Amino acid sequence: MSQKDTEFFQPVSGMDLPRFAGVPTFMRLPHVTPDHAAYDQVQIGLVGVPWDAGTTNRPGPRHGPRQLRDLSTMIRAGNPATGVNPFALVNCADLGDVAPNPIDIMDCMDRISRFYAGLKSSGILPVTAGGDHLTTLPVLRGLASDAPVGLIQFDSHTDLFDSYFGGNKYTHGTPFRRAIEEGLVDPRRMVQIGIRGTAYNTEDVEWGEAQGVRIIRIEEFFDRGVADVMAEARDIVGDKPTYCTFDIDFVDPAYAPGTGTPEVGGPNSFQALQVVRELSGLTLIGADLVEVSPPFDAQGNTAWLGASILFEMLCVCAKAISARARDA
Amino acid sequence: MSQKDTEFFQPVSGMDLPRFAGVPTFMRLPHVTPDHAAYDQVQIGLVGVPWDAGTTNRPGPRHGPRQLRDLSTMIRAGNPATGVNPFALVNCADLGDVAPNPIDIMDCMDRISRFYAGLKSSGILPVTAGGDHLTTLPVLRGLASDAPVGLIQFDSHTDLFDSYFGGNKYTHGTPFRRAIEEGLVDPRRMVQIGIRGTAYNTEDVEWGEAQGVRIIRIEEFFDRGVADVMAEARDIVGDKPTYCTFDIDFVDPAYAPGTGTPEVGGPNSFQALQVVRELSGLTLIGADLVEVSPPFDAQGNTAWLGASILFEMLCVCAKAISARARDA
Amino acid sequence: MSQKDTEFFQPVSGMDLPRFAGVPTFMRLPHVTPDHAAYDQVQIGLVGVPWDAGTTNRPGPRHGPRQLRDLSTMIRAGNPATGVNPFALVNCADLGDVAPNPIDIMDCMDRISRFYAGLKSSGILPVTAGGDHLTTLPVLRGLASDAPVGLIQFDSHTDLFDSYFGGNKYTHGTPFRRAIEEGLVDPRRMVQIGIRGTAYNTEDVEWGEAQGVRIIRIEEFFDRGVADVMAEARDIVGDKPTYCTFDIDFVDPAYAPGTGTPEVGGPNSFQALQVVRELSGLTLIGADLVEVSPPFDAQGNTAWLGASILFEMLCVCAKAISARARDA
Amino acid sequence: MSQKDTEFFQPVSGMDLPRFAGVPTFMRLPHVTPDHAAYDQVQIGLVGVPWDAGTTNRPGPRHGPRQLRDLSTMIRAGNPATGVNPFALVNCADLGDVAPNPIDIMDCMDRISRFYAGLKSSGILPVTAGGDHLTTLPVLRGLASDAPVGLIQFDSHTDLFDSYFGGNKYTHGTPFRRAIEEGLVDPRRMVQIGIRGTAYNTEDVEWGEAQGVRIIRIEEFFDRGVADVMAEARDIVGDKPTYCTFDIDFVDPAYAPGTGTPEVGGPNSFQALQVVRELSGLTLIGADLVEVSPPFDAQGNTAWLGASILFEMLCVCAKAISARARDA
Amino acid sequence: MSQKDTEFFQPVSGMDLPRFAGVPTFMRLPHVTPDHAAYDQVQIGLVGVPWDAGTTNRPGPRHGPRQLRDLSTMIRAGNPATGVNPFALVNCADLGDVAPNPIDIMDCMDRISRFYAGLKSSGILPVTAGGDHLTTLPVLRGLASDAPVGLIQFDSHTDLFDSYFGGNKYTHGTPFRRAIEEGLVDPRRMVQIGIRGTAYNTEDVEWGEAQGVRIIRIEEFFDRGVADVMAEARDIVGDKPTYCTFDIDFVDPAYAPGTGTPEVGGPNSFQALQVVRELSGLTLIGADLVEVSPPFDAQGNTAWLGASILFEMLCVCAKAISARARDA
Amino acid sequence: MSQKDTEFFQPVSGMDLPRFAGVPTFMRLPHVTPDHAAYDQVQIGLVGVPWDAGTTNRPGPRHGPRQLRDLSTMIRAGNPATGVNPFALVNCADLGDVAPNPIDIMDCMDRISRFYAGLKSSGILPVTAGGDHLTTLPVLRGLASDAPVGLIQFDSHTDLFDSYFGGNKYTHGTPFRRAIEEGLVDPRRMVQIGIRGTAYNTEDVEWGEAQGVRIIRIEEFFDRGVADVMAEARDIVGDKPTYCTFDIDFVDPAYAPGTGTPEVGGPNSFQALQVVRELSGLTLIGADLVEVSPPFDAQGNTAWLGASILFEMLCVCAKAISARARDA
Repeated sequence: MSQKDTEFFQPVSGMDLPRFAGVPTFMRLPHVTPDHAAYDQVQIGLVGVPWDAGTTNRPGPRHGPRQLRDLSTMIRAGNPATGVNPFALVNCADLGDVAPNPIDIMDCMDRISRFYAGLKSSGILPVTAGGDHLTTLPVLRGLASDAPVGLIQFDSHTDLFDSYFGGNKYTHGTPFRRAIEEGLVDPRRMVQIGIRGTAYNTEDVEWGEAQGVRIIRIEEFFDRGVADVMAEARDIVGDKPTYCTFDIDFVDPAYAPGTGTPEVGGPNSFQALQVVRELSGLTLIGADLVEVSPPFDAQGNTAWLGASILFEMLCVCAKAISARARDA
Repeated sequence: MSQKDTEFFQPVSGMDLPRFAGVPTFMRLPHVTPDHAAYDQVQIGLVGVPWDAGTTNRPGPRHGPRQLRDLSTMIRAGNPATGVNPFALVNCADLGDVAPNPIDIMDCMDRISRFYAGLKSSGILPVTAGGDHLTTLPVLRGLASDAPVGLIQFDSHTDLFDSYFGGNKYTHGTPFRRAIEEGLVDPRRMVQIGIRGTAYNTEDVEWGEAQGVRIIRIEEFFDRGVADVMAEARDIVGDKPTYCTFDIDFVDPAYAPGTGTPEVGGPNSFQALQVVRELSGLTLIGADLVEVSPPFDAQGNTAWLGASILFEMLCVCAKAISARARDA
Repeated sequence: MSQKDTEFFQPVSGMDLPRFAGVPTFMRLPHVTPDHAAYDQVQIGLVGVPWDAGTTNRPGPRHGPRQLRDLSTMIRAGNPATGVNPFALVNCADLGDVAPNPIDIMDCMDRISRFYAGLKSSGILPVTAGGDHLTTLPVLRGLASDAPVGLIQFDSHTDLFDSYFGGNKYTHGTPFRRAIEEGLVDPRRMVQIGIRGTAYNTEDVEWGEAQGVRIIRIEEFFDRGVADVMAEARDIVGDKPTYCTFDIDFVDPAYAPGTGTPEVGGPNSFQALQVVRELSGLTLIGADLVEVSPPFDAQGNTAWLGASILFEMLCVCAKAISARARDA
Repeated sequence: MSQKDTEFFQPVSGMDLPRFAGVPTFMRLPHVTPDHAAYDQVQIGLVGVPWDAGTTNRPGPRHGPRQLRDLSTMIRAGNPATGVNPFALVNCADLGDVAPNPIDIMDCMDRISRFYAGLKSSGILPVTAGGDHLTTLPVLRGLASDAPVGLIQFDSHTDLFDSYFGGNKYTHGTPFRRAIEEGLVDPRRMVQIGIRGTAYNTEDVEWGEAQGVRIIRIEEFFDRGVADVMAEARDIVGDKPTYCTFDIDFVDPAYAPGTGTPEVGGPNSFQALQVVRELSGLTLIGADLVEVSPPFDAQGNTAWLGASILFEMLCVCAKAISARARDA
Repeated sequence: MSQKDTEFFQPVSGMDLPRFAGVPTFMRLPHVTPDHAAYDQVQIGLVGVPWDAGTTNRPGPRHGPRQLRDLSTMIRAGNPATGVNPFALVNCADLGDVAPNPIDIMDCMDRISRFYAGLKSSGILPVTAGGDHLTTLPVLRGLASDAPVGLIQFDSHTDLFDSYFGGNKYTHGTPFRRAIEEGLVDPRRMVQIGIRGTAYNTEDVEWGEAQGVRIIRIEEFFDRGVADVMAEARDIVGDKPTYCTFDIDFVDPAYAPGTGTPEVGGPNSFQALQVVRELSGLTLIGADLVEVSPPFDAQGNTAWLGASILFEMLCVCAKAISARARDA
Repeated sequence: MSQKDTEFFQPVSGMDLPRFAGVPTFMRLPHVTPDHAAYDQVQIGLVGVPWDAGTTNRPGPRHGPRQLRDLSTMIRAGNPATGVNPFALVNCADLGDVAPNPIDIMDCMDRISRFYAGLKSSGILPVTAGGDHLTTLPVLRGLASDAPVGLIQFDSHTDLFDSYFGGNKYTHGTPFRRAIEEGLVDPRRMVQIGIRGTAYNTEDVEWGEAQGVRIIRIEEFFDRGVADVMAEARDIVGDKPTYCTFDIDFVDPAYAPGTGTPEVGGPNSFQALQVVRELSGLTLIGADLVEVSPPFDAQGNTAWLGASILFEMLCVCAKAISARARDA
């Protein structure tokens, strides 16, 4: 298997096996664990992090990976909108879930960090299905231990607060404060898009902007449009290694009701796809989609949007890997 | 009853009988079967086709007609947006459902074809509530047996595939391949609008375009806007007989979650109404609204949108009939 | 407490007490009844009117205030979009619900009118959570007994009909006919925005326009955009006392399914926030948000949008009071 | 049609037309209005009363008849448990809904009373789908104008209160107080079964028992069992004309969640069927099933139980009519 | 692996990996396909048949296997009620789904029959998650090709009809008529338990009883109790090879709303477990649980009961295999 | 207020204010905080503990108190089944929620313990609405610091495990192991009723029985009946101080679907009420109802059962206090 395996890593087609059938893996890809013979051919690994211990309000994202897997079986192989067929470009696999500890935040962050450090050392680019937004912190600890990375964050909240409930430093409202403090993210190569909703205070925004983070509120997003905003975002992160994190609450709750801290007045689903497509050309080292909370959307409409976003992420990541391989 | 009956064919008003009351017929119109004395005065017949045997993924449209009838009782008589009151222009009636055979596709297609051939011979223009999209094939067999018709299709899928599951020619992914092959539709007078979503391959698009079908993807739709796209659509079909088919999955699933194969990134409900209003002036011979799947939207929001679209269809069809009568 | 109380009237912060905890009052404000020591410091009172006896179709708004209270606990103190922190400007409190009589319309309207007359005499500006739209009539009886006020109405229906069911003058389809007849609203200082949907007839529009009411249909709203339409609206009401009433069915049902008479083809949630923000600078004497019907949206997405709109109303009202105080 | 019509009055079979197809009438019976040629052959009329203006708590039963019609299409023709095929015994039809006035209680009660008086004079026995429990009062006014009837009531509440909200005499908590006061029901031939739940006070029970009403609480019901309790009930009403009223909240809310005032700790669905079957042999003049509230059970499980109970009522009523005819 | 593998075939423990985590297989067992090295050690195979083309009323069971897998991850390893730990007795695995053809009944039955014939030849006892009840026919064709087997059927319907819709021989209402005709089941060793609901006619019962089938209606079941009825059932099938089929609509719809043809008045969930436990000691050759329809119960309560029943089936089958091995 | 206050502590009557109106406190009682003048007259305090950080599977009980408050407004003042009117016997109040820390288990347990120690020192008997079952541990630390208490536990799980996920000692599966180890509960005065479901192993049961805990499985419960089992339970705890904890998953999930770890085959709602009524006569020092998880039952049927159970607890506690006062 020294080159692209044309059979093993292909998703099962709904033309052969109906999409409601079979054990549900991400996008009907093979489930490959480290002890599997094909593990070292994997180039992009879809990973679930079923964890929501950092949630300060309504829990549920621990159930996200399973529902995202379920709905992702409706994804087909090609992307006519961008012309990318990720499974023809690189070897993709479902790597299963990180085993979480729902009771102990520190232990669980260690488990996640180790898992992603392992992926890094294996040369596997991770596309992650969370989990709440605290997930991104240990993921970055695993991936960005060498040098700070650039970050493009789609979100309705900055998640830049210092602490909650009288001193708790690790919640889904604080990961990017910690990531900057720990040198995992370069704040001058960081942009947040879609920020809105009511606010406790302005501490988060002031701190972030003082570090150099570019914060693009929803009003500016709607005024300028996707293309213009994303051109700026690409300028900010440049061509150095960059991570993308997408909180499903970036999207308006009419499109994504299944989340814990929705904010009305957000983008629609077409814009959600567009912003990811505009990541094309960046040096992506990974991406995540977080905060899908199945208990608030049992029918799975939110997860279907989430799976569609994961697929767009997969496409831009596959293209990035493919381009690097071609250039090398 | 040699002229427009001013009483019998009027819908019951919610001012007199609240809209939640009464046996639910389409838009509170009289239920008229062929043995009814008023049958030969009917000009537009609302017909249900409760059938989903062609569904390859998530079933449910067999329940569509009933939920559409239920929600359609919230429709009132006039359309202030277009100035049309269809019930003042032509005699409309609920003709009931075609009796389906849920177990036998071939038998059921025969039943439907015969029903619509009967309507054609009676001079009744049908506005149909499906049913999955395979429904449109036997409807066209009934209506277009003489000569191929033009077709305007609102949909997120082309439904132009050749076969599924190792050779099945009749599914809700193949009706328009068959319709073109059978000479029911003139592919050079056919346009598909709103196509999007992931794809198994490009076989459908390539085949369709090779026949002359104009396929307008959602990106083009959003770029050009409703008015420009629909002007082209009207040009394509011209003033010869034309049929309109509207798959509810044309609309974004935030607006229409109750469907079997949703694709995110679609138009909103206002655009859904607009595209139908832009059919005004065409030589319509019928129209359908398909793929409403009540089990995925028990509260009926999708069916309410579907009923609103059916009403807009009724308005443009009534206007077309009225214009023909005036011209004759 | 001769000046702004800096502690008592502040909402509980989610940073201290998680937002899912505690007895739910509107926006986590203190519950203050007339016998409370702090009652005479209240400047804006959030009031529930749990009543839907005027509903002609699908009932449920009687449950609106409770679900709106529940979801409003996710509102935080500040409004970064407009820079207003209402709780820093004026003293706000939850005044509880008007005790309704669900069985007797006339008695219940009297109860409501008396309650609001009491607020007026106490100098408290009410922001009301309905209730169906008939609620606004007795509210205006309480607030506008001296002189007719201006009215800005966001709605998909005019609610200007004369009567229902053979003579019933008091339903949620008639309040503004009555309000004009009773001299509570000056029809030349009245504007309705967002009107759409099918119609029984044109009696309502013709009567309203004959009185001088400006009716802006949804097509015009989308063509001109929020800023232009709202500039006209502000011109119409001028700087004299004005009331704002917001029927949640103004918004498209994808965003607000939990209502009794939804009309597809409406604005999105961002536009819903924008139109309220554009009330800034007016001489507001009160505002209401009506027709949220929890039985049709048990998960509370509609109520969350409603609570977000109530907060925007609170902001413009607080700013108006604050400006008046500063000018005085 | 001087004798049992063997074709016209038969329900459509699901063997021929699937049960999800067709305009939904009660149990797929013909919809017969007074102007229909077959009207005077009708022996049992299924009637909807879509009305809930008497509801003091959670509204919704106005939507009951439509959902009951929808689910009743799953009923088949025969009753193997009791050996009765009602449609072979008597002519049954769906008589449509009484046109309610949702805004005016007094007017609406008049409308209902007149409708049922008309049925009585036509010799049609009504089986009614409510509607809240106030419905039974005007029904009895229509049916029992000559002499008081016996009453068997399955319910978790006595509905024997005098008034609500400071004097309202007509609510769904008062119909049987009024019915006794008005001489419509003979309290010594009246039995209430299944009473439970918390209580405002004991006024209702004391008043009822003072009139001679037999009140069997749920604890006694469970202790003695269905057969013993129902034997006593039959003794109480004897062989004189008797009416049966069944509030769906008699059943435990696990079986019937779609109701406005549920009380936990009730009978199961098998017991619900049994108690109706035990009415066999009585001189029934009508029966009703009330308080099914679709907004609290959109999927229709409650309505399916309700439709099953209506069918059992139909069976005992058909048998009673048939026996009277045979004896005559 | 010549003896019980103590590691590979053990389900993942929720003590180690939380039950919401991981790719969901049946009961968290390994997913073993025929090409897997461990395939020939499998003794019991859990198999999904995602198919509902035989459904005459409300579709959905094609989604059953996926939701049953999802909920089955809440099952733990041991059964304290019966003292059986199936995974300590025999090697169990998830064998995936039979690839269905949702469009072609005959082709799909062939696919299923071949799959089960393969299991039989491999010595694997199947425990199946359907699918609608037609599923059992091709399963029996695969398993009982040599000689007719005994059958214990828990169901509210006999499924003994001859045909539907004018001649369709293969629906979910006919499998056991066909199975007897084809000599797959010995009707004198066949018992049906729980039969109830309304009936088209008595053709099914009469035909079945004429063949020797013992039909135990729900009234008899409740009168005699589980132990007595099941003792008779065991006598009927004796110690020869026997298959068990469990239609989830055997249970009352309060416990199992997610099914297509519910019948009220059924057993509770404890009785559902009990009847399966009473199969202990029989010579079981396989078992299935059918008609779980997720679209009618998105939250999965029905599937949780279904998964619990599958586990009880697994326990009695494991014990049967273990006993045979011990005796051999 | 040296004696029973006849006004202040009475719940609002639904006869005066409809039950859907008003700020929802537990059973419409006054909300009394420690700084309130009436605080030292409170005898029974209803307390919410919105906390679920100990949940190992599906989260949600943090939302329990709010939904229980909402539904509890349907409770009326008297209990006809037992003849107790708790509000006439003792002063009851809603004491609000303990402020939880959802992120830090140890900090949160301290907060809860301190709160309940405060109640104990104030002489207030707490009736608690959880929260997950770990809640009971810090409650007992607050109440049983002097001497071990007796415990009656209604539950489908023992919650007697030692640790989860490699050493976590504090989860909702371990509270009673800890409580016994810490000397808060006397295991020889402890009984668990309703235990069922699959099991990881038998460690919990063996350890518990070795300490002297009496474990009554569901099979024994159904065999012996409520009266006999509860007589034994009363014998076990005797007349010394006893606490009662009720996990809603004791009840079958058909009655209580809104919980995180449901087990099928449980008691019905009538039995749930009965077992609490049978606590009459004991020396109760408090009681709790835990594990109501609103995200899994948005309509609130589970919470309505939970509120009904809380009311029965309130009745037996009020009677116990009243008896002690009378005896003193």
